[in-house]
Amino acid sequence: MFELDARLEADTYFVAKTALCRLLLMDDARFPWLILVPEVAGISEPFDLSESDQTVLWRESMRLSRFLKAHYQADKLNIAALGNQVPQLHLHHIARYHSDVAWPGPVWGIGTPEPYAAEEATRLIGSLREGLALPLSLTLTA
Amino acid sequence: MFELDARLEADTYFVAKTALCRLLLMDDARFPWLILVPEVAGISEPFDLSESDQTVLWRESMRLSRFLKAHYQADKLNIAALGNQVPQLHLHHIARYHSDVAWPGPVWGIGTPEPYAAEEATRLIGSLREGLALPLSLTLTA
Repeated sequence: MFELDARLEADTYFVAKTALCRLLLMDDARFPWLILVPEVAGISEPFDLSESDQTVLWRESMRLSRFLKAHYQADKLNIAALGNQVPQLHLHHIARYHSDVAWPGPVWGIGTPEPYAAEEATRLIGSLREGLALPLSLTLTA
Repeated sequence: MFELDARLEADTYFVAKTALCRLLLMDDARFPWLILVPEVAGISEPFDLSESDQTVLWRESMRLSRFLKAHYQADKLNIAALGNQVPQLHLHHIARYHSDVAWPGPVWGIGTPEPYAAEEATRLIGSLREGLALPLSLTLTA
């Protein structure tokens, strides 16, 4: 049975469920950063998923990426499955700017995360749910 | 018309062509590191590809990843489309080990690349072509 990794749980806000995944917002106000976690137990690489779930994951990732880039008017998207620290399969989607603190390097392990103020997180999650409802067919039950 | 980015050209060896991509070996002996570059001009994000090319790219990436993890007996695969330094769309596939010099961080920008000796690169490319011929339907004309 799927259970979200404790570190992912601690470092993120729940946004919504998609057909395959749990969609999470990284609690770091420095970067617009969303994570798709397929709700499949015991998986650490995308190719460990069934072929049909691989396809769903990629389609969800593409829709999320396209939305993020437009919504945040980002200069670049970073999309990555790393999992060196948290082996549970999760796919990062990060809107990057030429002006952000990590540019042009990757964001992982750079500086100290800046947690969102609670009301800012609530506002942001609301706008993400609204913007992503159609492309990702979201449900909001955890 | 597609032309490989000059920095990718300088930093890699040509391995083969797939249905959609050019397959490159990063010239850094510290990490088994392969890159898929869709041969489509003017693309910087995977979702800029047509939907059918998105599907082909992902399928090629999954086959390459599965091969790399098994062939190199890696502890983890890192798969990423970043493009902060080279905007031409390219998808990294890196076999990672708990014992490698960058673990558990990402590899980009860490230390100094260690170029392969010429004969080692030739041997390695040969074994990659052999191992990937069937899953990736490679052709060897550049």
